[in-house]
Amino acid sequence: MPASSLSNDNRKKTQSTLHDLKVVVLAGGVGGAKLADGVAQILPPENLSIVVNTGDDFKHLGLTICPDLDTVMYNLAGIDNPATGWGRQGESWRTITEVGRIGGPDWFKLGDLDLAVHLTRSHLLAKGCTLTEATRHICDHYGIKTQLLPMSDQPAPTMIACEEGLLPFQNWFVKRQWQPAVQEVRLPEDVKTTSQVALALERTDLILIAPSNPFVSIDPILNVYPIRAMVADLPKLVVAVSPIIAGEAVKGPAAKMMGEMGMEVSSVAVAVYYGDLIDVFVFDQRDSSLYKQEGSLKDLVTFQTDTIMRDRQDRRHLAQQILDFSMELFNK
Amino acid sequence: MPASSLSNDNRKKTQSTLHDLKVVVLAGGVGGAKLADGVAQILPPENLSIVVNTGDDFKHLGLTICPDLDTVMYNLAGIDNPATGWGRQGESWRTITEVGRIGGPDWFKLGDLDLAVHLTRSHLLAKGCTLTEATRHICDHYGIKTQLLPMSDQPAPTMIACEEGLLPFQNWFVKRQWQPAVQEVRLPEDVKTTSQVALALERTDLILIAPSNPFVSIDPILNVYPIRAMVADLPKLVVAVSPIIAGEAVKGPAAKMMGEMGMEVSSVAVAVYYGDLIDVFVFDQRDSSLYKQEGSLKDLVTFQTDTIMRDRQDRRHLAQQILDFSMELFNK
Repeated sequence: MPASSLSNDNRKKTQSTLHDLKVVVLAGGVGGAKLADGVAQILPPENLSIVVNTGDDFKHLGLTICPDLDTVMYNLAGIDNPATGWGRQGESWRTITEVGRIGGPDWFKLGDLDLAVHLTRSHLLAKGCTLTEATRHICDHYGIKTQLLPMSDQPAPTMIACEEGLLPFQNWFVKRQWQPAVQEVRLPEDVKTTSQVALALERTDLILIAPSNPFVSIDPILNVYPIRAMVADLPKLVVAVSPIIAGEAVKGPAAKMMGEMGMEVSSVAVAVYYGDLIDVFVFDQRDSSLYKQEGSLKDLVTFQTDTIMRDRQDRRHLAQQILDFSMELFNK
Repeated sequence: MPASSLSNDNRKKTQSTLHDLKVVVLAGGVGGAKLADGVAQILPPENLSIVVNTGDDFKHLGLTICPDLDTVMYNLAGIDNPATGWGRQGESWRTITEVGRIGGPDWFKLGDLDLAVHLTRSHLLAKGCTLTEATRHICDHYGIKTQLLPMSDQPAPTMIACEEGLLPFQNWFVKRQWQPAVQEVRLPEDVKTTSQVALALERTDLILIAPSNPFVSIDPILNVYPIRAMVADLPKLVVAVSPIIAGEAVKGPAAKMMGEMGMEVSSVAVAVYYGDLIDVFVFDQRDSSLYKQEGSLKDLVTFQTDTIMRDRQDRRHLAQQILDFSMELFNK
């Protein structure tokens, strides 16, 4: 909803405790997974749904691989690898090393434990499960109670347009290590969301756009019909967290892409990019407060804090601040 | 060819050295892999083709798994696990253990090293390679020069008819551990062989039917058009080695199946089963020589020796004896 309608009566929440707040987090991989985990540490699982980008998904070595879903899942289960930001703790690499030895593609580093998820998911999909059902099955076995929802059960591959033409996302992201320069992110048409995502969006009080890449993590989610319209039109508070701090991405190619696509590389530019879709923009204390100089942002509510999440306590702390700030707005 | 035509002029080979002998081995898994390895230790690789049963193949956990092809491959590469008869030396089980932990199917024991082959093969098949091409690729990387040929590039799934109906082969063989009792082995219709197998059969001097299960390893190969006809009609020597010794199978369900299908459980019964298709029958020294009492076998040439292959030397020794005996028949 437009920021200017924030004080409308219909935005006031009758509930006044955080315990009752219903939240949907839109998340990509690393940064999204961290903030999602922070929120999951606070809210009862029935009040939180995490809608995850599946535009990065691809078929590889016969398997259906869903990097962002798995990163969020490993973070929620507390079995993520904090050193890399992706993959599992205590991972080993015996199979993929052998794949390389026998001339198979080993550029996508699939660990032995991680492979178990891809194999099990591929098995469940082959049996006729939807991706949503397969994700629920695996989450159950990792003890995750929070609802983890793929943005769609249909394939929705993100493509990168560059001077070489169109590259499948993982070819550009992992194999080519963010090369060549991005001209445009190309998202698929006619992808529909699931009934589970639609229901979560309908009943939510707050949508939290995680500090994920706006172009290849958040846009792919918003591009799935009718998620963008539901985020824009339903009377909910929409809070976005900047993935850019002091002109750099905390992780990943967001800053590089902004430069290549002719944007200013700043958190302000991220806020401008989200535009009317968001009501509140959370940005880092390391950034200067230039927002009020941007005419288009004059009604945007901003919240400045330490947004770097070094450990699980940091995640919880950031999530708590954002939720408390949102509650204040609701109860104004 | 019928045994009675063995002394025809057209069976006489002009070549007199083993070095020139062209051999095709028809092989299933364990026993077939051992004898194939024995022959491969003797013949130059360009004179040997091993045609392998792919009736056991199945799609599992998203992957195309070819148990017999891999067993033969691991044996030829000298990286087989002699303790189990299948799988790799120095194998580990990290991935499949995790698959079980997250509620995936772990009844088919896929080791971490073994998985690399299934992943690489699935990748190559997805790229458009035939199974023959994918097998060649992997063999090249394991340093195998001998031609290892799947019986067909088409799926040709063996089914087991039992009181429960039709079971896919691996469900019966591995998951159910040879239960329930076999009423009949059901082989697919209209499966064609490859140009590589057809060429190998056309140019071979000797076809060696390995001591594999006649019903679920050898019959599936013979069932592929036009392999049975080529084995039967072309003027070549066909030698079969009994998988049954003193009423028992060295490994696997062959003896159990013979009993369930109402056959006598003996090497004689195997010879009778192969019938006119074979010229020479090799059976173990532990068996008594009952062959001449069987009217239908009165023209069959037999060769009795120690057929148990405990190590690579035994494999080579048995292969050498069979090839020497065949050369004697050729040069008679």
